[in-house]
Amino acid sequence: MTSVEPSTPSNGLSRSETVRLEALSDGVIAVAITLLVLDLKVPHVGDESLWTALAAQWPSYAAYVTSFLVIGILWINHHSIFRQIRYATRGLMLINLVLLMLIVAVPFATSLVADYLTEPGFNANLAMAMYSALALSISVAMVVLWGYSLRHPELLEPYVDVAEARRSFPRFSIGSSVYAVLIVVSFISAVAALAGNFVVALYYAFEHLPKTRAASPDSPSN
Amino acid sequence: MTSVEPSTPSNGLSRSETVRLEALSDGVIAVAITLLVLDLKVPHVGDESLWTALAAQWPSYAAYVTSFLVIGILWINHHSIFRQIRYATRGLMLINLVLLMLIVAVPFATSLVADYLTEPGFNANLAMAMYSALALSISVAMVVLWGYSLRHPELLEPYVDVAEARRSFPRFSIGSSVYAVLIVVSFISAVAALAGNFVVALYYAFEHLPKTRAASPDSPSN
Amino acid sequence: MTSVEPSTPSNGLSRSETVRLEALSDGVIAVAITLLVLDLKVPHVGDESLWTALAAQWPSYAAYVTSFLVIGILWINHHSIFRQIRYATRGLMLINLVLLMLIVAVPFATSLVADYLTEPGFNANLAMAMYSALALSISVAMVVLWGYSLRHPELLEPYVDVAEARRSFPRFSIGSSVYAVLIVVSFISAVAALAGNFVVALYYAFEHLPKTRAASPDSPSN
Amino acid sequence: MTSVEPSTPSNGLSRSETVRLEALSDGVIAVAITLLVLDLKVPHVGDESLWTALAAQWPSYAAYVTSFLVIGILWINHHSIFRQIRYATRGLMLINLVLLMLIVAVPFATSLVADYLTEPGFNANLAMAMYSALALSISVAMVVLWGYSLRHPELLEPYVDVAEARRSFPRFSIGSSVYAVLIVVSFISAVAALAGNFVVALYYAFEHLPKTRAASPDSPSN
Repeated sequence: MTSVEPSTPSNGLSRSETVRLEALSDGVIAVAITLLVLDLKVPHVGDESLWTALAAQWPSYAAYVTSFLVIGILWINHHSIFRQIRYATRGLMLINLVLLMLIVAVPFATSLVADYLTEPGFNANLAMAMYSALALSISVAMVVLWGYSLRHPELLEPYVDVAEARRSFPRFSIGSSVYAVLIVVSFISAVAALAGNFVVALYYAFEHLPKTRAASPDSPSN
Repeated sequence: MTSVEPSTPSNGLSRSETVRLEALSDGVIAVAITLLVLDLKVPHVGDESLWTALAAQWPSYAAYVTSFLVIGILWINHHSIFRQIRYATRGLMLINLVLLMLIVAVPFATSLVADYLTEPGFNANLAMAMYSALALSISVAMVVLWGYSLRHPELLEPYVDVAEARRSFPRFSIGSSVYAVLIVVSFISAVAALAGNFVVALYYAFEHLPKTRAASPDSPSN
Repeated sequence: MTSVEPSTPSNGLSRSETVRLEALSDGVIAVAITLLVLDLKVPHVGDESLWTALAAQWPSYAAYVTSFLVIGILWINHHSIFRQIRYATRGLMLINLVLLMLIVAVPFATSLVADYLTEPGFNANLAMAMYSALALSISVAMVVLWGYSLRHPELLEPYVDVAEARRSFPRFSIGSSVYAVLIVVSFISAVAALAGNFVVALYYAFEHLPKTRAASPDSPSN
Repeated sequence: MTSVEPSTPSNGLSRSETVRLEALSDGVIAVAITLLVLDLKVPHVGDESLWTALAAQWPSYAAYVTSFLVIGILWINHHSIFRQIRYATRGLMLINLVLLMLIVAVPFATSLVADYLTEPGFNANLAMAMYSALALSISVAMVVLWGYSLRHPELLEPYVDVAEARRSFPRFSIGSSVYAVLIVVSFISAVAALAGNFVVALYYAFEHLPKTRAASPDSPSN
């Protein structure tokens, strides 16, 4: 690290703790995304066709693919936020812990959807609403994380254009409302809500990051 | 690493082994915290309400949130100790292994609490007492780790104020006694003891680290 | 990093995001390979011989060893591709996410084979065909990843000989067809197809990488 | 990295691939040691005493503690070998993959011991013999890894005293025979063999590494 180290803000953790916080987050997200495979369960058939049994498990595969994409995109956005943060604080650390707590619960919500998506009656809608509510919570935690950072500009990397970031913050926040819509959709059609979660993740994969990237050119301290 | 490397103490592991020890610890803690999701189990209902079944699982969610916070804070305190240690020894390595062994058992204790918290009779109290006893053991292992380090100041980073750290050691140690109290509380009210564990973790999140941070400013070798 | 940093291509992620992408991939692959152990299940016998029960589980051990080798080789080849990529793009990131999604599913396919390999009738063949189809999908995703990179040479490390890499691309791609053959073999003999997957992984362990390595000498930026 | 990079030996992987190989090994070992917690299972009692049920599970706890120590020591010795290796080869990589495959199987062998240790009759002895046989295999794989490295001194770090390392190799190798003895002990007393595995791991924790450490002082390239 050849750049001059700015002094740690009085309310901030040291730089090494901040880097470590992101490393732990990466580890947790990597394990959480891999645990999704535990939701794929080998069907136990006797002499019947394994093919039929596997085909009947399509909600498991659909939920697996959707959640894999959701966590993958979350990881990228999380990293995108953290590389603009130079010093974490205790408060930011706790917000991040809550965010991780919600992300780690995704395999549970995925399992819930896989088990109930094709059940007749209200339970399928409820399972999918829970899934969408978890996605909404994660999205809100992400907004809180970024909002907190923007209110403490002394914690940010020097190259971050704070004024510009604050201007784009409302648009960033409003994105969460799509998950509120998906909760409503869950009660109309569970399958449509699952597809909706997939499409939203795909949209974020292509749309979200370039804007923040433009604000954060490579610097030696990255 | 531009600083002059002090020679490894005769009883110490090399610097690279010490860094690796912390990296393995980080990996183990990241996996352990993520495995907590396996304690959240999808309820199997027929035509009954999934909502009722999910609501009846509240001890699982309460135990999940508490343990997530407990391990998260443990990780931060573990890191806070390790960044003041420049050279580990075999003894310190074994203490750390025992500490990790206890941390990795947290998902088991969490599962125990989730399954028994609302059972009538003594089993709920016992499950919660086991949980608090594990928290006590982890806290004591942390005290032993830090106490061992302070008795071998040649292992510490040069910027650590050993005299000051030794003065604050009794206060650091006494913190463990709160878990002894929580074991007693477990036998009066299991739910209160779980809430107590949550509150203690939250307290440590805000209170504990700033003191040690003050003693360890960023240095190029971090 | 003392070398002069070339400017990020307009369609590329920053260098730090690219490094992170590979780190997440490494973490996911490490967890996926370790989760294979969950496919080894302790048999529950009463007074009968545990030895007989363990011996009857040979398909589990065969599938475990094969999948461990398969994922291990995949990891090496994945790393071999990524060290030639200097800047990822959103597209490349999504291809990589699909690749990881398929790799993480290997423990599921392994479990499927372990449970059905010695079942009489068509189900054994089908289970093994699914396993080979997953291997084919992974191989194709790897080809797409490398093909995409070669079509965007501005993303590659400066030392990569793009003309040479493009010439060897057809031979690299054709390797995938061996998995198509193994799907067919699965329907003739499931055991032979499992052995085939093992042999192919072993072949790639010794054969594949030296060629790409020759094209990528160590450089300070590695 | 300020030291002059020696050229990669013709049969070696690049330095970055070698570092990565160790990082993947670390990740796999960290996950494997954490998965040991899955062998601790919450007992399901009705109105009976949870305490009695937990106490009856002592073989699970004994196996957990032993395996945690075994994998912890393995990790340290693995790291101790790898920091003396500058360039891996394909052969070394495969030996390492076999070693990891065996280490990852430890949670399975642990579960086997936990389930059968107190069963009456021969099954307890067999379970413990399998555990000891796995420990023997791991030990032999470690000897093969180090022996292979000593036969290719061009792969080692420049500071390694190859002549001295070769002289101490027979003593290093003979250590494996203790596990052959433990296989025999398993057939006399399963509990004694488990205790034996614990004691051997503890012995290696204190005894083994200092010798290799003396031969590998910290260097800037570490």
